[in-house]
Amino acid sequence: MIKAAIVGYGNIGRYVLEALQTAPDFEIAGVVRRNGNQNCPAELAGLEVVKDITELSVKPDVAILAVPSRSCEEYATKILPLGIKTVDSFDIHTLIPETRARLQKVAVEAGQVAVISAGWDPGSDSIVRALMQAMAPKGISYTNFGPGMSMGHTVAVKSKAGVKDALSMTIPVGTGIHRRMVYIELLDGYKFEDVANAIKTDPYFVNDETHVMQVQSVDELKDMGHGVNLVRKGVSGKTQNQLFEFDMKINNPALTGQILVCVARAAMLQKPGCYTMIEIPVIDLLAGSRDENVAHLV
Amino acid sequence: MIKAAIVGYGNIGRYVLEALQTAPDFEIAGVVRRNGNQNCPAELAGLEVVKDITELSVKPDVAILAVPSRSCEEYATKILPLGIKTVDSFDIHTLIPETRARLQKVAVEAGQVAVISAGWDPGSDSIVRALMQAMAPKGISYTNFGPGMSMGHTVAVKSKAGVKDALSMTIPVGTGIHRRMVYIELLDGYKFEDVANAIKTDPYFVNDETHVMQVQSVDELKDMGHGVNLVRKGVSGKTQNQLFEFDMKINNPALTGQILVCVARAAMLQKPGCYTMIEIPVIDLLAGSRDENVAHLV
Repeated sequence: MIKAAIVGYGNIGRYVLEALQTAPDFEIAGVVRRNGNQNCPAELAGLEVVKDITELSVKPDVAILAVPSRSCEEYATKILPLGIKTVDSFDIHTLIPETRARLQKVAVEAGQVAVISAGWDPGSDSIVRALMQAMAPKGISYTNFGPGMSMGHTVAVKSKAGVKDALSMTIPVGTGIHRRMVYIELLDGYKFEDVANAIKTDPYFVNDETHVMQVQSVDELKDMGHGVNLVRKGVSGKTQNQLFEFDMKINNPALTGQILVCVARAAMLQKPGCYTMIEIPVIDLLAGSRDENVAHLV
Repeated sequence: MIKAAIVGYGNIGRYVLEALQTAPDFEIAGVVRRNGNQNCPAELAGLEVVKDITELSVKPDVAILAVPSRSCEEYATKILPLGIKTVDSFDIHTLIPETRARLQKVAVEAGQVAVISAGWDPGSDSIVRALMQAMAPKGISYTNFGPGMSMGHTVAVKSKAGVKDALSMTIPVGTGIHRRMVYIELLDGYKFEDVANAIKTDPYFVNDETHVMQVQSVDELKDMGHGVNLVRKGVSGKTQNQLFEFDMKINNPALTGQILVCVARAAMLQKPGCYTMIEIPVIDLLAGSRDENVAHLV
């Protein structure tokens, strides 16, 4: 059994717990959260809950970092030298190469494995993009997101003066172009037109078709469903018009939690270093015997 | 530059040649075909064409086996001990585990790499199936083929008494069920009903909805387009109804040729042994620098 610790217990952490509970080859070494075992949610009863990973009575093989992207590297840098592997779903695409380079050094020195950016995008989508690129080396790929909630855009809206609560939905309109549907609750004393204008001129929104709507309750609109449509039209050898498409409609944090657990399993099989998901054989993500997986899936 | 030989020069071999010619990191060490350089097709002008791989003046790093599935293992077993890696698109799903086990031994003893079953199914579809299984460990996957020509079924029809020429098309009707549309030219002196009945009761067809039609010219119906639709509905952690779908519409031998070349590239990076595509990181299939591919695709 692989001993896994969950580090950070927000939305993703809860789903990591469920994925670990259903995995046949994992045991839960414990949960690390800011408040330790104070005000613990009911589902953590029977688990060791601590403030720092070093307090766990069973040393984990791997720590699943369910913390905000901006904190992933800091946690990995502290945990890897303890002789514990790390996996995270760091999702700031532009910073992945440099983060990987820095954690490569930390992981090799510690003789450990770090896997970063292991969610669905970056993550499983990256595997599909790389595979499509291999199947048709010339051509254009488009990643279309949604319909679904964008965390980054929602945070940007919430930062505007006059916004009490907000939700920014990403709507795919094809060829990698997205419409932004923004739902806001307004604070007293603010004019809707002014707030809407501040949102539309924000760098997060200025290049996209953006619609802002005032609602009574943002909370009533929230749904954790999300989707992706990945398409490529390209050339295999000298043959044009090869068409590829990948679609999914999923509960967003549930898929992220599941992928983090699969990648924690794969981390056990890699040589020391820092990896993204396209650098790991997909068979390593799976429970069960290698030979049986080859027989059933190839 | 990776030096690749093409072994076997039929339909797939021709497309392997085109994929090698467009790859930035390959040079063609030569072509091995039954007739050597006699009656060579025009596109082989300027290439060394021989009857046996040992006759090539430049030793290849990797041999791309574009030979019938039944011959793949025999060729690999001869070529690996020469210090040459092999890749093939062996497609008899049920025999993959034992073939992999035997070639594992041969490859390790030779200190070489063999990659088997590297086409689109088995092959790239296997990667998608394994990835979907990881994303939703509980659930059902369906692989729907076509519309497209089935080689195996066409050969089965051609073996029937009274059949002059034949084409069996695979038509997907969903949930992994397929309709067979069989087009035949009849020899004089045979009754259509008798031949149609012999086809429909053949083990290849007896379990599928099969329609047999007599045509004047089978050749005029032939098109190398094919397709696949891979779907999975399953459970991530404890969350139901996660929906995944992969679709492609492709020139069949062109995609197989391209994948064989990508896998030949990946073979250069693996430790000695025998692999299927799900055991190889997708990044290894790609030309270009590893860091740049991480930056562009993750």
